[in-house]
Amino acid sequence: MYKAEVNVTLRPAILDVQGKTVEHALHSLGFNSVGHVRIGKHITFEIEAASLEEAQKIARQVSEQVLSNPVMEDFAVTVHEVIAEEAGA
Amino acid sequence: MYKAEVNVTLRPAILDVQGKTVEHALHSLGFNSVGHVRIGKHITFEIEAASLEEAQKIARQVSEQVLSNPVMEDFAVTVHEVIAEEAGA
Repeated sequence: MYKAEVNVTLRPAILDVQGKTVEHALHSLGFNSVGHVRIGKHITFEIEAASLEEAQKIARQVSEQVLSNPVMEDFAVTVHEVIAEEAGA
Repeated sequence: MYKAEVNVTLRPAILDVQGKTVEHALHSLGFNSVGHVRIGKHITFEIEAASLEEAQKIARQVSEQVLSNPVMEDFAVTVHEVIAEEAGA
């Protein structure tokens, strides 16, 4: 079994309204040294696949076709194998 | 300058309705090998600080006090130094 982590972020040219709002809140709370807040999605899922290459291919397809909007967003995918710790029942 | 990356995730015991919805959508689209989809937030920001330790302290405070809900969410913080590439003007 493989585990995928996908970070979906707004492209740098796109205004991040949610990030700006959080940035203003942080400044109001006294965190004046914080800037350029950007908020994206952090998605994790498991993949049943025969090899790491196959799992990476599935993770990329899922990210491109479902998890991200290619017009406005970028994504970064990381896949690693999970060594099952459960004893077979 | 330092750059912080914070991943805010729902605690494992909390039902992730958004993740379940995406998982059903993926199965409908034929991605049957994908499971356990969990959706969190990926937040990046910059910190002006005198040292890495100070930047890490600020990033942890921001994550605890503003970016996450300690009852339902966990967070992971990574901070690294950014070597400014802009020539001083």
